[in-house]
Amino acid sequence: MKKIYTIFALSAASIAFSQIQKVEPAFWWKGMKNPDLQILVYGKNIANNEIELSDGIQAKNIQKVENPNYVFITVNTNEINFPSFKINIKKGKKNISSYSYELKQRLPGSVDRESFTSKDVMYLIMPDRFANGNPSNDNTRDTAEKSDRKNPGGRHGGDIEGIIKNLDYLKELGVTAVWNTPLLEDNEPSFSYHGYAQSDYYKIDPRYGTNEDYKRMADELHKRNMKLIMDYVTNHWGSQSWIIKDLPAKDWIHYWKDGEKGFKRSSYRMTTQFDTNASKIDMENCMDGWFDTTMPDMNQSNPLVVNYMVQNAIWWTEFAGLDGLRVDTYSYNDKKGISEWTKRITDEYPNFNIVGEVWMHNQAQISYWQKDSKISAIENYNSYLPSVMDFTLHDAIGQVFKENSGWDSGMQRVYDNFANDFLYPDINNILVFAENHDTQRFNETYPKIEDYKLVMSLISTVRGIPQLYYGSEIGMSGDKATKGDGDIRRDFPGGWNGDTNNAFVKSGRTDSQNQYFDFTRKLLNWRKGKEVIHTGKTKNYVPQNNVFVYFRYNEKESVMVVVNNNVKEQTIDMKHFSESLNGFTKGKDIISDKEISLQNSLTIPAKTSMVIELQN
Amino acid sequence: MKKIYTIFALSAASIAFSQIQKVEPAFWWKGMKNPDLQILVYGKNIANNEIELSDGIQAKNIQKVENPNYVFITVNTNEINFPSFKINIKKGKKNISSYSYELKQRLPGSVDRESFTSKDVMYLIMPDRFANGNPSNDNTRDTAEKSDRKNPGGRHGGDIEGIIKNLDYLKELGVTAVWNTPLLEDNEPSFSYHGYAQSDYYKIDPRYGTNEDYKRMADELHKRNMKLIMDYVTNHWGSQSWIIKDLPAKDWIHYWKDGEKGFKRSSYRMTTQFDTNASKIDMENCMDGWFDTTMPDMNQSNPLVVNYMVQNAIWWTEFAGLDGLRVDTYSYNDKKGISEWTKRITDEYPNFNIVGEVWMHNQAQISYWQKDSKISAIENYNSYLPSVMDFTLHDAIGQVFKENSGWDSGMQRVYDNFANDFLYPDINNILVFAENHDTQRFNETYPKIEDYKLVMSLISTVRGIPQLYYGSEIGMSGDKATKGDGDIRRDFPGGWNGDTNNAFVKSGRTDSQNQYFDFTRKLLNWRKGKEVIHTGKTKNYVPQNNVFVYFRYNEKESVMVVVNNNVKEQTIDMKHFSESLNGFTKGKDIISDKEISLQNSLTIPAKTSMVIELQN
Repeated sequence: MKKIYTIFALSAASIAFSQIQKVEPAFWWKGMKNPDLQILVYGKNIANNEIELSDGIQAKNIQKVENPNYVFITVNTNEINFPSFKINIKKGKKNISSYSYELKQRLPGSVDRESFTSKDVMYLIMPDRFANGNPSNDNTRDTAEKSDRKNPGGRHGGDIEGIIKNLDYLKELGVTAVWNTPLLEDNEPSFSYHGYAQSDYYKIDPRYGTNEDYKRMADELHKRNMKLIMDYVTNHWGSQSWIIKDLPAKDWIHYWKDGEKGFKRSSYRMTTQFDTNASKIDMENCMDGWFDTTMPDMNQSNPLVVNYMVQNAIWWTEFAGLDGLRVDTYSYNDKKGISEWTKRITDEYPNFNIVGEVWMHNQAQISYWQKDSKISAIENYNSYLPSVMDFTLHDAIGQVFKENSGWDSGMQRVYDNFANDFLYPDINNILVFAENHDTQRFNETYPKIEDYKLVMSLISTVRGIPQLYYGSEIGMSGDKATKGDGDIRRDFPGGWNGDTNNAFVKSGRTDSQNQYFDFTRKLLNWRKGKEVIHTGKTKNYVPQNNVFVYFRYNEKESVMVVVNNNVKEQTIDMKHFSESLNGFTKGKDIISDKEISLQNSLTIPAKTSMVIELQN
Repeated sequence: MKKIYTIFALSAASIAFSQIQKVEPAFWWKGMKNPDLQILVYGKNIANNEIELSDGIQAKNIQKVENPNYVFITVNTNEINFPSFKINIKKGKKNISSYSYELKQRLPGSVDRESFTSKDVMYLIMPDRFANGNPSNDNTRDTAEKSDRKNPGGRHGGDIEGIIKNLDYLKELGVTAVWNTPLLEDNEPSFSYHGYAQSDYYKIDPRYGTNEDYKRMADELHKRNMKLIMDYVTNHWGSQSWIIKDLPAKDWIHYWKDGEKGFKRSSYRMTTQFDTNASKIDMENCMDGWFDTTMPDMNQSNPLVVNYMVQNAIWWTEFAGLDGLRVDTYSYNDKKGISEWTKRITDEYPNFNIVGEVWMHNQAQISYWQKDSKISAIENYNSYLPSVMDFTLHDAIGQVFKENSGWDSGMQRVYDNFANDFLYPDINNILVFAENHDTQRFNETYPKIEDYKLVMSLISTVRGIPQLYYGSEIGMSGDKATKGDGDIRRDFPGGWNGDTNNAFVKSGRTDSQNQYFDFTRKLLNWRKGKEVIHTGKTKNYVPQNNVFVYFRYNEKESVMVVVNNNVKEQTIDMKHFSESLNGFTKGKDIISDKEISLQNSLTIPAKTSMVIELQN
């Protein structure tokens, strides 16, 4: 950034109005790798005044933008040897407004914080639909939409307190990391429960709790050796955001002159991100179109925008002690800008994991987005995104357990997905999931628990980071296809006072719910200690008769996974697997707890999986 | 290869039998880049004798193998200054058999021969089904299967003479290169017409003609500025091959001890070629399995096998003057061996094009096989194969013209294919086709000529080398799905004496056949001179309402292609294409010959394509 020391002209009209109304970030930390801090100062016509820092501190840069209500002050925090300093707004020698800016000390180990990895199992929560721990914050004076639990698209009252109260449930289940959909303020008049139209990037929505509650949730997770992953939205901000309502400059968002109020819907044609022959209009229609009417599309090619988002993500990481980020609609962002955003955050925290939503149906296109991809290197692009989502596995899971064996159907479809694993630069760092908050619930697709068990056995034992979606572990279903988003985001039973079915405790669960839960708990708690699953190698065997067999192995141990998706019992000849058995003659199926002989053949009941720890 | 000068022990038993029965290659050329020549000498127990070259010529290596009926003599042709020399088989000082080996002079320009490129349109012929130019060779004494035109899987009598007689037809049609399915001897007792179970790698099947006839066909093509592409089969040889019947060593083929007569069918699971976690048994089952009972799987990890195939391909190139190769089942070969084979041939002929059959349904996997692929580089592999086949476009073409507009259906499916073009290291050198001899005929899928025209407009104007399949240009159909291979390999009408419908000439064609032919002739002859189509850049526009628009352009000219796959007339707003129109206001549609205004909007009738040369 150019060093420009701007002297602002005095303006008689400005005096009365130029009070500091907002400062973002409100405070910062000393000792960051990148010592530069850009402070957004907001106030009516504030840019028409002189800006001065106390104690002789010299700003590296004071940047004025189109809108005189903003100034962006860049300081080098390494050069400031005070715990706080003042930002003074002056007219001549007269101080007309002042803000005391604090530079805190970082917690020890902040830089080298660990993050989520393939050791973890991630649990996705929609906070509004999980548990209402504090009914008194269901409605607040400052937020538009009021609670209406009867409305599938309305707010139901779930909150941070509800999550905290049920962390022991999650601990028992065996998940080790929580990804919640956004908790920042979303002040849309309707559908605000999903939180993706955020209106204040530095404030937890009061209907979920306070910033301190969020930090407390992180602390409570950490006490239990669990991790917190923030759902971060860079692509779009909410229409009710105070910055959107009074834009620093027009080019903070993609404003469509031919659209209504600047709005034009994205074409969602993300292939334009790869297509070297894409026309400009198609690229604009996709990348600069809005995700929805309430979601102005942010311009990440504007350095101020990227910098705001970088600092904001770092601020939450430092403030709350985050263990990672999930980034919404990653591939809809301006390619260069989002790459810079990602790189700067991971430069600050070298072990930090960030998983991006790259919703595509082709492994070459998904792996394109992972850091150091050889595929994106063809186009001289590097996203720096450590982790991506295995959407093609999700696609396969959504159909194979209804399919018979065929050339490319049934378990073959799953195998075919793994055959392309070589395309991913870091195959252990990809998110493995059967569903999320935007898809059909798989218990809807497969209402029988036998299929649930097959799906869970698969995603818990293949490479990558398994991700669950709240409620499936007690058999919750939901039909997006015909009933819409509300149906896949039903309230977790027991999360609300008066719920007759409390699935958070064994005694409150139905028999069926306990069957789902117990299976999941057993599998996930087993997985916790299994390095061979976390980081072991894989050996695949082409499925036969809808039975998929693979081994996970390292120098110390081997696990044989058998997924029999056939509707009939199947017997497999163990000779076929001699490369992987390699002397092992028996094993223990951790699902049935049975000892299994592996000497001749193995019979697997219909629609059954086995996860066998090999023994000599 | 190690230099081993082997002195063979004399064997009393060998004398009577050790006559030279075969020498391959029968002759060679001086002045090859690689001066080494490995001569296979075959005769009963021949290896139990002394081998001597005349004129004091020293062999670099005389290699003996398991089977004493073979010796492999390597000479450095640079060191031989005679037009011929003798290979003498000796017992002591007595010459018991002798062969005069000729070293010819290469034709000028042989090294730098041009090959097929995106300037060409390739026409695929099944010789047995195209035209019977010489009925006297329909059956021969030395070949097992006799002619039976009533049998869809039998021999029908088509031959080289039939192709030569109809080259003017092909010239008129506008194709510039002929790829015929194999013409080498295939002496299977049945289904020999397809030619992929070859029994003699140095001999044209006598039912097609002679080696000299083949050379004459090449000459006749060259006279017409057309090219000849040989269909080369490295993966498997025919069970009736004299070498297969008396293998030099067991490891020339993949012999399955647990199979019947060494046979075990390939699993055809080619993904094991990519899957870094594939089990050995799956790799073997795919790569070492046989393509069919009559097709022993060759072992390209045996250097003698690879060398035989390299020299054989070069021999035909020099002998007949080939302009390129098409390689059957390329991805079924041993990866390393086929890479060596391909590299050695293209090292010998730097401009030579070779297109491999890589029948996959994923662009990352297809592009993996193209020379210098960044994708195969992930696995440190380089096939050196210059050209691959766009099977995913083929897959799309097979369904889109029946589809309505949708998120990923209709012309969108075609566009989505092109969006991955960046994966190919050389996008102009890929084969573009709607069908071949192994697929449903597209006139069967789309019986209306309006769809034929859409398909042809597409494959004639997108990047790559268009490939047609004989007979489609007169509307021939064929239903593999329910009637089998014979139905897509019907006889070309007019190719046999007595055919009442002679589609080789205008007067013999039906009105419908003339409509198909005339459209194709016009389009292909237009394409011949269009550098902008051969090598121009592409600009894609995401389809709207099942209308796909793209531009081909270079510094000199621009062509706008509009493919309206909608069943209704569509009007498109020309502003949408302003990036590509870039000042052009009108154009000429080379299909309708009409002048087209491009100033406001353009109306395209239902199911119609336009190929518009832009004008200022």
